[in-house]
Amino acid sequence: MLNFAPLLANDVAAMDLSVELSKNLLTTNNVWMMLSTALVFIMHLGFAGVEAGFGQAKNTVNILFKNTVTPIIGILSYACVGFYLMYPGFDVPGWFNFDSAGWNMFWFSPGSADVTAGYADGGYTYWTDFLFQAMFAATAATIVSGAIAERVKLVAYLIFTLFYVGLIYPLIGSWKWGGGALDAMGFYDFAGSTLVHSVGGWGALAGVILVGPRLGKYVNGKTIEKPGVSIPLAVIGVFLLWLGWFGFNGGSVLSADPGLVSFVLVTTSLAACAGGMGGFFAAYFAFKRLDLGMVLNGILAGLVSITAGADVINPGASILVGFIGGILVVVSAITLDKFKLDDVVGAVSVHLTCGVWGTLAVGIFSTNPDHSFITQLIGVAICGVTAFTAAFLIFFILKKTIGIRVSEEHERLGLDSHEHGIRGYTIVFDE
Amino acid sequence: MLNFAPLLANDVAAMDLSVELSKNLLTTNNVWMMLSTALVFIMHLGFAGVEAGFGQAKNTVNILFKNTVTPIIGILSYACVGFYLMYPGFDVPGWFNFDSAGWNMFWFSPGSADVTAGYADGGYTYWTDFLFQAMFAATAATIVSGAIAERVKLVAYLIFTLFYVGLIYPLIGSWKWGGGALDAMGFYDFAGSTLVHSVGGWGALAGVILVGPRLGKYVNGKTIEKPGVSIPLAVIGVFLLWLGWFGFNGGSVLSADPGLVSFVLVTTSLAACAGGMGGFFAAYFAFKRLDLGMVLNGILAGLVSITAGADVINPGASILVGFIGGILVVVSAITLDKFKLDDVVGAVSVHLTCGVWGTLAVGIFSTNPDHSFITQLIGVAICGVTAFTAAFLIFFILKKTIGIRVSEEHERLGLDSHEHGIRGYTIVFDE
Amino acid sequence: MLNFAPLLANDVAAMDLSVELSKNLLTTNNVWMMLSTALVFIMHLGFAGVEAGFGQAKNTVNILFKNTVTPIIGILSYACVGFYLMYPGFDVPGWFNFDSAGWNMFWFSPGSADVTAGYADGGYTYWTDFLFQAMFAATAATIVSGAIAERVKLVAYLIFTLFYVGLIYPLIGSWKWGGGALDAMGFYDFAGSTLVHSVGGWGALAGVILVGPRLGKYVNGKTIEKPGVSIPLAVIGVFLLWLGWFGFNGGSVLSADPGLVSFVLVTTSLAACAGGMGGFFAAYFAFKRLDLGMVLNGILAGLVSITAGADVINPGASILVGFIGGILVVVSAITLDKFKLDDVVGAVSVHLTCGVWGTLAVGIFSTNPDHSFITQLIGVAICGVTAFTAAFLIFFILKKTIGIRVSEEHERLGLDSHEHGIRGYTIVFDE
Repeated sequence: MLNFAPLLANDVAAMDLSVELSKNLLTTNNVWMMLSTALVFIMHLGFAGVEAGFGQAKNTVNILFKNTVTPIIGILSYACVGFYLMYPGFDVPGWFNFDSAGWNMFWFSPGSADVTAGYADGGYTYWTDFLFQAMFAATAATIVSGAIAERVKLVAYLIFTLFYVGLIYPLIGSWKWGGGALDAMGFYDFAGSTLVHSVGGWGALAGVILVGPRLGKYVNGKTIEKPGVSIPLAVIGVFLLWLGWFGFNGGSVLSADPGLVSFVLVTTSLAACAGGMGGFFAAYFAFKRLDLGMVLNGILAGLVSITAGADVINPGASILVGFIGGILVVVSAITLDKFKLDDVVGAVSVHLTCGVWGTLAVGIFSTNPDHSFITQLIGVAICGVTAFTAAFLIFFILKKTIGIRVSEEHERLGLDSHEHGIRGYTIVFDE
Repeated sequence: MLNFAPLLANDVAAMDLSVELSKNLLTTNNVWMMLSTALVFIMHLGFAGVEAGFGQAKNTVNILFKNTVTPIIGILSYACVGFYLMYPGFDVPGWFNFDSAGWNMFWFSPGSADVTAGYADGGYTYWTDFLFQAMFAATAATIVSGAIAERVKLVAYLIFTLFYVGLIYPLIGSWKWGGGALDAMGFYDFAGSTLVHSVGGWGALAGVILVGPRLGKYVNGKTIEKPGVSIPLAVIGVFLLWLGWFGFNGGSVLSADPGLVSFVLVTTSLAACAGGMGGFFAAYFAFKRLDLGMVLNGILAGLVSITAGADVINPGASILVGFIGGILVVVSAITLDKFKLDDVVGAVSVHLTCGVWGTLAVGIFSTNPDHSFITQLIGVAICGVTAFTAAFLIFFILKKTIGIRVSEEHERLGLDSHEHGIRGYTIVFDE
Repeated sequence: MLNFAPLLANDVAAMDLSVELSKNLLTTNNVWMMLSTALVFIMHLGFAGVEAGFGQAKNTVNILFKNTVTPIIGILSYACVGFYLMYPGFDVPGWFNFDSAGWNMFWFSPGSADVTAGYADGGYTYWTDFLFQAMFAATAATIVSGAIAERVKLVAYLIFTLFYVGLIYPLIGSWKWGGGALDAMGFYDFAGSTLVHSVGGWGALAGVILVGPRLGKYVNGKTIEKPGVSIPLAVIGVFLLWLGWFGFNGGSVLSADPGLVSFVLVTTSLAACAGGMGGFFAAYFAFKRLDLGMVLNGILAGLVSITAGADVINPGASILVGFIGGILVVVSAITLDKFKLDDVVGAVSVHLTCGVWGTLAVGIFSTNPDHSFITQLIGVAICGVTAFTAAFLIFFILKKTIGIRVSEEHERLGLDSHEHGIRGYTIVFDE
């Protein structure tokens, strides 16, 4: 008998240790996910830098206003609606559901006393889950912002953002990440080449079509370059976006799993580099110049391209995926200009063209034999049709009601002096 | 007897595992705290961006000089004095003590061989503790810097910083975070709405009063806007401050506790968003324009407001606290101008007004029944009287001795050409 | 007999727990190393900011192009060659080896299924190891970039970078960090004062000598200042470099060891502050002005100086090491100008002078009695001779073949309008 007492104590100790061990792992995972959240957050500054840098001086404040308010609307609307629409917990994989229990929990019993009850799935906490996903949500709208800058009416853009981030993005997201119908079908999109980037890109394309090109952009069949006000600002933006992608892709592992996360960071970084090289060579071939803008967009193209399959594509293949993305972004930009589709920062080329390419690339290069090109194509098509139709409808209704474009005079004078009353730069040295 | 040998070995194994488990948790906590430290560090670049962006071109270098040297003085003086004054280990909760043993340990036996002995309290190491707190300390002075920019004499500001960060900030901090008299009284200030932000804000107010408004700011009863040189720079600053707040509030949990830290990040983010909305609406109501400056200051206002209670205020209430903060910052800015108190970046409105509001909000919205409005009010008053008096005295003595304001001529010409010999921007393209 | 069954189960439990415990620690270490990688990555934006900010407006795009493409070439060439050359796993400590097994593993069996097999040494994963080191590698070339900016031919710089980062840097690195001959000799370089910074600095010196000074820099024995286009951009750069150093030095512990990493962060931060003070005072003494550029370079000087011994130098001594570094950077800059060696951003002074100083400082201040001044000096000399000779040869061959300097006309007009076709800044407000 005497022997059993210590034995039991020992069993209890082992059990306790096992619980503590799980808590420790949860803590580590959660640290990684919180920092990934912070990294995705800083992407909003990245987008602001790219758009304000490549935009013209007379519209700087307007662009920055859009980019500052976008994450605000994104996060608040995600807290109000999107989160529960995107992760509704389908009983049977379908196309629509809403987690009303989660909604109640978030808004009515969220005291700090309750937080220990909020651990989602052992990997990280309910609150981390919300914030990480909220930061993602806002990026879809930001993509639209860049394409239609310099002539879109601000209030129309803000209303569009509210609906697109609050409803359309989480709805489409629920089909795959929320365990809906596309997930059941075997469609794969690791971190959102389709669910985030192409959804944003389709919205941008709808916006570009309905808002129309900037005055003086296409004259007598020629495309007139509108030089960006500050290339350093655009470079800051691209580097911050690259940095943010450490969290965007790395956090999409949804744990700190060392092998998987670090593998994802390697494929992501290699694709970014290869995308930059692709943009470099394609632009040199097309324009015979060392085109910094296309190297920068090539980097973003590489990042968007690898996003769907960063965890299932080998390093060598990730370089190929990124490099092709970098070439595609140049081809796409030239093509859009042919159709007089005026995209200020190349958002459609970066996020839509490469978002589609990256999703299809999973069907080609994935090391997981369950992934198929046809399924990827179907997923791209379903999300694309939905996103484009929804965005087109929202912009169309806004166009027929409050209008989506500023007056010709305001566009000429610049949006800053009219709507905001200040200028982006006041570099004078005399009193 | 045979049975006991493995039993004992097993007990030892369990004990060893338990020790290893604690070490692992310490390691994880420490990683979070070190990264929070890095995030708070980058707030100094955020402050630099806001101040240099909203300041005038002719004073850019001077502002950047202040903001670069401030963390340097802050960290060094905290290492020399502040740290041991702020965490003295009171025997009986009081108003003043000094940890001379800690001082000796830091300076005389700090070799890397000793570091394992330096673990503070199981949560993170002694060195992490120092660096995290040192980064905090320097922010208090930075707040003052923004308010009195463009006319303060640099050397006077640097001396003020030395005393304010080296002595006043840690002294007041010790009353609550060091376990002093305010802590014993039940006063609550999670991450420093009062201890950091309002202390900085009171210093800023004292400075603004004693330094006086910039030339040509208030003319014939009218307030003349001095447009900032670079709004993109100010936006970079605000986003970096928001990013830094992930560490400022998230790190103030003083561990990586997954539920608590992620809860804090959610309330912090929601308050920031709501603050931005509050600034948006209040400025639209007051000025009838889409005022980017007030959206930016509204974001900061929301962040400052939630800082005192980020761990004890529910998400819904955090939105209210932030939104009210965003409105208050506009009301406060208008009010200060009425009294001809010229604050270049709105530092008093953001950090003092919202610091006080946030601390009182704990008394209204806290889920912890021990928190009381009256106690919060008393804490605000004690810290406020001390900070304002001390700052006023330091500035007053400096004014009567070396002077705290540059000459009229230098102010007109700009501080850069006189004190620094270079300009902030030299955008010329010809040889 | 009955007793043994639970005992065995218990033993297994303890063993399992022990394995889980190791995995947890690996996960935490890996999180720290991945975030350190992200921090080192952002240093490339820091370098871009410093160089573009201190450069002239007419060369902004060219400088940014260099700084964007440098990490791309760096990471890709490190993946192709450098990594296996730098960490070859010497059988007997020597001067050259190549890890062909690693090369095969990286390129031919790297599927995500294999990643668990890739754990390098229990501290972090194979992929993290690669990416952290790849980010380091690219910095060596970036240092060269800053020194020879504004007149170097872009394609020549890119070819130089390919060879210097792909071959020379990893070769020299293998001698110490790869376990080669310098390591066996007892040479110590914690995070690369010599292996990264002075290697970059020697390359910069060779470049500066062979490329020659900018037109109009030295006229009739006088040094003509070329004012930087944007001091705020340079300040952003320096703060981001300081931030990145949290990962550069903190990650060089190669684990998340709480005591050691946090100790390193403290010495690093104190040295940065002291370096800024050193630059401040030295420049005030030399030039009688509050020289922001020298405070900024002083900060970098302090960081470079402490990098070799951040883990073995006490806080007090780290202040001394940094302060002397800050003074040396001013003395070095003045000296270089005396010899008409034109270094646009002071890269030679910051990275070479202080890299050498920091490495020698280990021989003076290290708490580890095994470290010796003579060994440090020998290591500095061997690496220096190798790096300078190699860099000189590459630049010399390029000079004699494709040329390394742009034409006089292009230099006068600025490199942007010629090679890139856009300007860095287009701040116009009229249509």
